[in-house]
Amino acid sequence: MATQSYDDYREDMIGRANVADTTELRDYYRELEQFNAGALWTVANKIEPWQPQTASVPVVWRYRDLRDKVLRSTALVTPEQAGRRVIYLDNPGRHDVSAAVGWLYSGLQVMNPGELASSHRHSASALRFIMEGEGAFTNVDGHKMTLGANDFVLTPNGTWHEHGVAEGGTPCIWQDGLDIPLMNALEAGFYEVHPELQQAVTYPVDDSTLSWGNPGLRPAGAEWSKRYSPLFKYEWGATYEALHRFAKASDGSPFDGIHMDYVNPATGGPVMQTIGASIQMLRPAEHTKAHRQVGSFLYQCCKGSGYSIINGRRFDWQERDIFCVPNWTFHEHVNGSASEDACLFAFHDLPVMKALGLYREQAFGENDGHQPILDPA
Amino acid sequence: MATQSYDDYREDMIGRANVADTTELRDYYRELEQFNAGALWTVANKIEPWQPQTASVPVVWRYRDLRDKVLRSTALVTPEQAGRRVIYLDNPGRHDVSAAVGWLYSGLQVMNPGELASSHRHSASALRFIMEGEGAFTNVDGHKMTLGANDFVLTPNGTWHEHGVAEGGTPCIWQDGLDIPLMNALEAGFYEVHPELQQAVTYPVDDSTLSWGNPGLRPAGAEWSKRYSPLFKYEWGATYEALHRFAKASDGSPFDGIHMDYVNPATGGPVMQTIGASIQMLRPAEHTKAHRQVGSFLYQCCKGSGYSIINGRRFDWQERDIFCVPNWTFHEHVNGSASEDACLFAFHDLPVMKALGLYREQAFGENDGHQPILDPA
Amino acid sequence: MATQSYDDYREDMIGRANVADTTELRDYYRELEQFNAGALWTVANKIEPWQPQTASVPVVWRYRDLRDKVLRSTALVTPEQAGRRVIYLDNPGRHDVSAAVGWLYSGLQVMNPGELASSHRHSASALRFIMEGEGAFTNVDGHKMTLGANDFVLTPNGTWHEHGVAEGGTPCIWQDGLDIPLMNALEAGFYEVHPELQQAVTYPVDDSTLSWGNPGLRPAGAEWSKRYSPLFKYEWGATYEALHRFAKASDGSPFDGIHMDYVNPATGGPVMQTIGASIQMLRPAEHTKAHRQVGSFLYQCCKGSGYSIINGRRFDWQERDIFCVPNWTFHEHVNGSASEDACLFAFHDLPVMKALGLYREQAFGENDGHQPILDPA
Amino acid sequence: MATQSYDDYREDMIGRANVADTTELRDYYRELEQFNAGALWTVANKIEPWQPQTASVPVVWRYRDLRDKVLRSTALVTPEQAGRRVIYLDNPGRHDVSAAVGWLYSGLQVMNPGELASSHRHSASALRFIMEGEGAFTNVDGHKMTLGANDFVLTPNGTWHEHGVAEGGTPCIWQDGLDIPLMNALEAGFYEVHPELQQAVTYPVDDSTLSWGNPGLRPAGAEWSKRYSPLFKYEWGATYEALHRFAKASDGSPFDGIHMDYVNPATGGPVMQTIGASIQMLRPAEHTKAHRQVGSFLYQCCKGSGYSIINGRRFDWQERDIFCVPNWTFHEHVNGSASEDACLFAFHDLPVMKALGLYREQAFGENDGHQPILDPA
Repeated sequence: MATQSYDDYREDMIGRANVADTTELRDYYRELEQFNAGALWTVANKIEPWQPQTASVPVVWRYRDLRDKVLRSTALVTPEQAGRRVIYLDNPGRHDVSAAVGWLYSGLQVMNPGELASSHRHSASALRFIMEGEGAFTNVDGHKMTLGANDFVLTPNGTWHEHGVAEGGTPCIWQDGLDIPLMNALEAGFYEVHPELQQAVTYPVDDSTLSWGNPGLRPAGAEWSKRYSPLFKYEWGATYEALHRFAKASDGSPFDGIHMDYVNPATGGPVMQTIGASIQMLRPAEHTKAHRQVGSFLYQCCKGSGYSIINGRRFDWQERDIFCVPNWTFHEHVNGSASEDACLFAFHDLPVMKALGLYREQAFGENDGHQPILDPA
Repeated sequence: MATQSYDDYREDMIGRANVADTTELRDYYRELEQFNAGALWTVANKIEPWQPQTASVPVVWRYRDLRDKVLRSTALVTPEQAGRRVIYLDNPGRHDVSAAVGWLYSGLQVMNPGELASSHRHSASALRFIMEGEGAFTNVDGHKMTLGANDFVLTPNGTWHEHGVAEGGTPCIWQDGLDIPLMNALEAGFYEVHPELQQAVTYPVDDSTLSWGNPGLRPAGAEWSKRYSPLFKYEWGATYEALHRFAKASDGSPFDGIHMDYVNPATGGPVMQTIGASIQMLRPAEHTKAHRQVGSFLYQCCKGSGYSIINGRRFDWQERDIFCVPNWTFHEHVNGSASEDACLFAFHDLPVMKALGLYREQAFGENDGHQPILDPA
Repeated sequence: MATQSYDDYREDMIGRANVADTTELRDYYRELEQFNAGALWTVANKIEPWQPQTASVPVVWRYRDLRDKVLRSTALVTPEQAGRRVIYLDNPGRHDVSAAVGWLYSGLQVMNPGELASSHRHSASALRFIMEGEGAFTNVDGHKMTLGANDFVLTPNGTWHEHGVAEGGTPCIWQDGLDIPLMNALEAGFYEVHPELQQAVTYPVDDSTLSWGNPGLRPAGAEWSKRYSPLFKYEWGATYEALHRFAKASDGSPFDGIHMDYVNPATGGPVMQTIGASIQMLRPAEHTKAHRQVGSFLYQCCKGSGYSIINGRRFDWQERDIFCVPNWTFHEHVNGSASEDACLFAFHDLPVMKALGLYREQAFGENDGHQPILDPA
Repeated sequence: MATQSYDDYREDMIGRANVADTTELRDYYRELEQFNAGALWTVANKIEPWQPQTASVPVVWRYRDLRDKVLRSTALVTPEQAGRRVIYLDNPGRHDVSAAVGWLYSGLQVMNPGELASSHRHSASALRFIMEGEGAFTNVDGHKMTLGANDFVLTPNGTWHEHGVAEGGTPCIWQDGLDIPLMNALEAGFYEVHPELQQAVTYPVDDSTLSWGNPGLRPAGAEWSKRYSPLFKYEWGATYEALHRFAKASDGSPFDGIHMDYVNPATGGPVMQTIGASIQMLRPAEHTKAHRQVGSFLYQCCKGSGYSIINGRRFDWQERDIFCVPNWTFHEHVNGSASEDACLFAFHDLPVMKALGLYREQAFGENDGHQPILDPA
């Protein structure tokens, strides 16, 4: 058996550790181990890298690959057995924590007409982005919402929530996004099943959007001290119209085109404390410049088609495809059509990074902001 | 000449001042006066009342009375002479400070087609509510906005602003609301005329509303640290639609019917630091209950007709009429129509009261919440 | 009887009102008056001055003048008659509102050994600064505090409070500071006498200072959501030591020497929402530079002697003297001793100005920052 | 080779996943794997536990075990080779991330008289707690501080910092605490060596403590917008005195005795955004009750001796010993002396948990709050 090496991370630079193994040192290290200790210089350069080292890899999940498999799950397992029939996205670099990217989980959930999941709540924050089907609904703390394609829905941490599809509907598929991996990493995850399995609808249907989804206005006197948005459903119609209105007043971001954040209307801040979301429109033939950010992103194309260049590799996408951009990784987006706009929904963990004072971003400085393409995916 | 009285505010109650004048005390008081001092017990009960004593009186200003007079001002004085041609609302109890109610100023301003006022800025916060005419516009710090009836527009404290009417328009009248009296009372008012008299239009027309006036969305990455709303114009169409949407989800306030606050979308808070504004819809035949608040209110009827009962007196109003509710004064509202809704715009100083921790409200407790009417106005 | 003049405030400058009275205009103005209205251009230049116009005048109240009068009040009126035996400071420019400066009230209160005032509470924020005597105490919401010379004590708005002097003590005199005039101006003042006249002591004596008056530390897990400081008493010993510690690390402010703010340790902000306080040390022979601020100040010399130059006039002060600096008025301070330090306590309304976004300050730009002295006071 | 199992986490309860492997399902799972996907029900119960599952184990690091080894490092490696001579604490459950507990790193650093480390900065927040020796100093962004035993010092994220020991001093040992593992987990860690290797001292020595370490007072007009404390050094003398002062006013916490948080005096909040710290005094013979919290803790005994019961096991400690309490783990503390007080310094990640809305705590409900002891450590 080979001798264990302790000097794998040496760097020849002042202020960095650069100690070669010797017999005496190896004895010393083994002695330290007996007391649950170690010599910092054997790991210092590893644990203090010059810049973030992401464990995630860029991936595109194509809807044409996954749709059939998602639907097939309804034949393979019952809701009672499975809890929920969801195919989750498994980043090869994050298989150990079942994450799609960074500390974010994502899955494609399917429900058939007449099905109703049991109500539960948890420390993880959750969202849905509706992909297809008619008749889907969600009940969040008694607020029932009807859901259509491209609607964006919150089920914030700590809220009782349950999903279903009306009897007269069609099979519905949506993307779930949660920060389950982050809750586990922070050892902060609690989970409860509703004592009565279902909860009552205690407000007028869609009251959240009718009350809080109005521009520049809020219910007078309404107090809202919770740390997530009182607006639970952001409808696609108003969202798409907003993109076009904003496009009349702005040249857009060099990195993201016409780019808007979904916000908590009670504060102007992110929709939830640990997950944020945004929507962007790439105008016909638009090719943005590359930048990188401290934060992990999961995108879904909700209109049009195109590609993104992530860490020098090209990833093509079309409607309903999902792809990720790992932390501190250069990325740029291209609308593949010269006549139609393309829209990308994204959710991310920027609220975590900003709450902890860790956010940074950096433009790609060379080649007029465009990465050389290493090889097509 | 009569002897000065020092015991005008006596109250026979433990903990309150109750000292009768004597010759010795009068001598003592006069001695104190020589040293810029006085005996607290001679004024204590006056300056520490049991509850707020308002100096303002309820008034209704009828548009049918004032409209002609406002228009006549354009014949009587030139813009150059007058600065602005405005008829201000002069509360009989606040004549000394030229206030419409409390520390709030209001006036009706008129401009003819082709006129353009010079640009200025001041410590007072200001707003406009458009009453009639076509072609009006405002430029706030380079953001030009076109204005239609019932649009609500901000010109926040410290912003350069100027108003005008396009050549092809019609005479335009709007209500100005400002807190000039408060600025004077706090001895905090600064005023400047723009060095070039006019300012340039440096953003796309109506960019503020296009960018910030979208439900549940904000420009991604936009930083806004100013303490007033980045949304300067709240258009009537979207506002009236919001009232009807909210009405589907809410029973409304017992005191104010369907009641929404105009907000700063970057914070969810009031539109400006010292003036807030709201819009309310009284459903057909709705008669609200009475309450009173720490704060002064100036209402404008912008749709329908009805009346309000203020401190036990009835004040009838119809479209374009303006009326005030003084501080800590009971008031309730009645829609006079059994078939049409009625809408009231209001601005107020609640942001001041809340910023200083002074806000309170109280429901009228008797007679099922309705004041007995003392006598019709 | 003379014809009323409406053109008293004309200014010959573009953007300002400049309308001469005519017969026709006078008729017009009188017509407007009948409808509770007026022409803005007749008052515009008055109500929109170029910079703040203070109503207060600088005054010094000398302790040697007032002390006897304060003590004499105990012979002239009983506590039961007077409520409290206080000589208030009456600024000649603010006689109508019984203010010492701006919207701030101040008075000198005296209590004899064994006396105990009844408990009350009010919307006004209040403070005490102890001037002389032994055995004084205050009870704020059940927190009893013992008081010595130069101790600074809060009785925040809404707290039940009562003062007394122990049987074995001596006659005690302190300065009261309140914002009673502001509460009246804002029509927000409520007043209550304690239903049982006295309140119980429900915490260990001086618990507030023992718990919250420690450097860089706070009680673990203590929640404090009130908008005033949980630290009610700031003792002179620690305060004076802090000035000397800070002096080792700082050159001091050019305008105020070694200058520290009393703060709410739970937030780092001002001690109360509407009144702030500070302490400053002028080093031997120090002569500061002049500046002016939006805010009104009431100073008490608590150590040493010297003078201040306020709006070009010199005001001498020594220990226990009180003087005011009106809003937007240039002032500079001089320590009259070449060997001893001099200390000034001050309270002010800067928290109001800052909460409403109105604070500004300006250095005196000429003569190396020193005002020419117009004439000695 | 055995067939892979996919049903390891089944739970027989409504709302939880409970799917047994079948050949068909295994094929389905393998198919999903090809597309970077999986069936949620195979991992759902694992990734959504009912409550936090900590990876850390309780450990005590005894100073008598480690002190010699720390000192020996100075003979084994030079500062130039090692960067810093530090023995880090290696939790057996967190060996993969070199953490002492949770996402917190800790080590014992030694420096000899005349040594001076090179200056660097990083995204990790850092602190020191001085254990022994004379002459140590730290320079944080130009603020040089002299350090004595039990002084607590911040080197916040993003600040340039360097440590040294004066020529005339003695070998010095201190505990380093950082959140390096959290920075790596969040993929947010940046690291820089100072371009000139050393930084200048640009403020008076100890200016931070002289300016900001005063009770209830702060430098007037000092603006501080950084998200960490402007007070970098909390001296032991004042800290220990504060514990005794607080003890006069409080019965203490049932879980922690006389317990105070080190705070940022500019906000009243935690000292840094991602690491908090506290000090507690156990009175003679005090035995606290058990509770558990969402958060990881690293304690150092800085006075006296005693033991803690963590997850039912007893861990003895005396002066300079360090021990950890993992996330959501019951713990209680006992002062082993009937005559002397015992003090524990602790740092933790509660600011992270609170910033993300994840904090919870729970008292041990049985046996009068005391855990049964499973077996002595």
